Amino acid sequence: MDIERYLKDMQEVVNRALEDSIPENADIPESLKASMRYSLFAGGKRLRPVLAIAASDAVGGKRENVLPSAVATEMIHTYTLIHDDLPALDNDNLRRGKKTNHKVFGEDIAIMAGDALQTLAFQLMTDQSKVDIPAGTILQAAHEMASAIGASGTVGGQVVDLESEGKKIAKETVQYIHTRKTGELIKASVRTGALTGGGSPKELGALSNFGEMIGLAFQVIDDILDIEGSEETLGKDIGSDLEKEKATYPSVFGMEESKKIASDLVDSAEKEISFFDEKADPLRHIARYFLSRTN
Amino acid sequence: MDIERYLKDMQEVVNRALEDSIPENADIPESLKASMRYSLFAGGKRLRPVLAIAASDAVGGKRENVLPSAVATEMIHTYTLIHDDLPALDNDNLRRGKKTNHKVFGEDIAIMAGDALQTLAFQLMTDQSKVDIPAGTILQAAHEMASAIGASGTVGGQVVDLESEGKKIAKETVQYIHTRKTGELIKASVRTGALTGGGSPKELGALSNFGEMIGLAFQVIDDILDIEGSEETLGKDIGSDLEKEKATYPSVFGMEESKKIASDLVDSAEKEISFFDEKADPLRHIARYFLSRTN
Repeated sequence: MDIERYLKDMQEVVNRALEDSIPENADIPESLKASMRYSLFAGGKRLRPVLAIAASDAVGGKRENVLPSAVATEMIHTYTLIHDDLPALDNDNLRRGKKTNHKVFGEDIAIMAGDALQTLAFQLMTDQSKVDIPAGTILQAAHEMASAIGASGTVGGQVVDLESEGKKIAKETVQYIHTRKTGELIKASVRTGALTGGGSPKELGALSNFGEMIGLAFQVIDDILDIEGSEETLGKDIGSDLEKEKATYPSVFGMEESKKIASDLVDSAEKEISFFDEKADPLRHIARYFLSRTN
Repeated sequence: MDIERYLKDMQEVVNRALEDSIPENADIPESLKASMRYSLFAGGKRLRPVLAIAASDAVGGKRENVLPSAVATEMIHTYTLIHDDLPALDNDNLRRGKKTNHKVFGEDIAIMAGDALQTLAFQLMTDQSKVDIPAGTILQAAHEMASAIGASGTVGGQVVDLESEGKKIAKETVQYIHTRKTGELIKASVRTGALTGGGSPKELGALSNFGEMIGLAFQVIDDILDIEGSEETLGKDIGSDLEKEKATYPSVFGMEESKKIASDLVDSAEKEISFFDEKADPLRHIARYFLSRTN
């Protein structure tokens, strides 16, 4: 299959759904709406929603049933980026090649835009009117998403990440940070696709493991790119992890070992879903694509 | 009935449920957990969860079915307070007689504690394992809550509030701010109790109007207390609205007119629920209590 074509098509599907969920004429104060839209449409790869769609495709789900949750994963991702970039946290000026949200709209609006994007994600995920699946399934997907991105998940990982800056940390700690800060949402994105797509328990279990592995792989590769990538391609400050003395896989495991870990994770992830038919090809290709990406 | 007794009993019920939802041994990084617990247990009156419980009582609902959503309303309220107090927003040092969250834990942890409390609220509201009500009803309550507190609701109101500081504003604007910033969550708290309690459409409609009216009344009375209350009783800086040139009812409508508006709203709210039997007495008393409160 043509994975580049699939990714491009799905990105367009996601972009249209994002546009529908927060149109320019939405009843939202202008500055807030502009701030939310600025970061939502800053040129993200839409990796999480595409993973949700690909997982739904793998279990034979309908596109319209996964779309609201898929879009929600991008809103959650965007909210965490806006808040992570704030001066009190990572204090970043550049994101995806553009000024960070608070640099354009001010810290106050940036904080509230992040808050409102998280809320909008749950508003979408709990909307029964947009999907044709049992209410219990919608609830489970929303509940799993909330469990993944909160104090024991994404936010918890970000806290330990910040507190680890400049410290010599153990391998377990960097694994904890990456699994939570990045891995949980990616895993939940895959699961939400599998759930709303009506996957069997066996399929759900395999996709869960798949999501967990590529979630961690993604962050390890991100660490590697922070050192070996180019600023032009990545659209953000290169070496900023080093500068901030961030806990990264290369700094704790070394560069070669980190590359091996990422490659092994992707191999294992592929094996987890080997019993799926060709409907899982997009997922397989995305996993491979992770390893070869340069931004 | 003894409303003081009822409020105290329900506060205890809510406090126990809050404790259960984020116990001291929860798997959360220590600083984050301490920050979340600090503001959750800073001595709030638990007005929103008590309103949810009282609304559930009014329609004959079971206590255990409303409790998760009731607790969620307090988490949402607490998250908005933590973020509103931040230096980039209201820059407040004192809240409920104690240092504000960021003054104790730093801005980074305060931002993330607020984020995680919002997430935890939705985690609780979407948890099917804790309640015995149809999944579709749980979903509706969670969806309405999300619709109430986001960019078109609570957060939107806060944005317009900030942007109105120091400006001469129209009556419609202060009404917009108060209805959204404070009213929407109070109304949603009442509705969530009515929904999870299994209220009829007629009951839901009346409780909706009731919630909307007391929600606005609450903020108008808050404005009045900011001028006429005492710092000792309120536990926060008195006159801080004036100092920040905030949009308030007294500043736009005048003090006497504001008192009349609040009183009329409470009267109208009571009339809305006049057809309920004595099971709605707690709601009636809480509405009256609003008018007489001094903090």
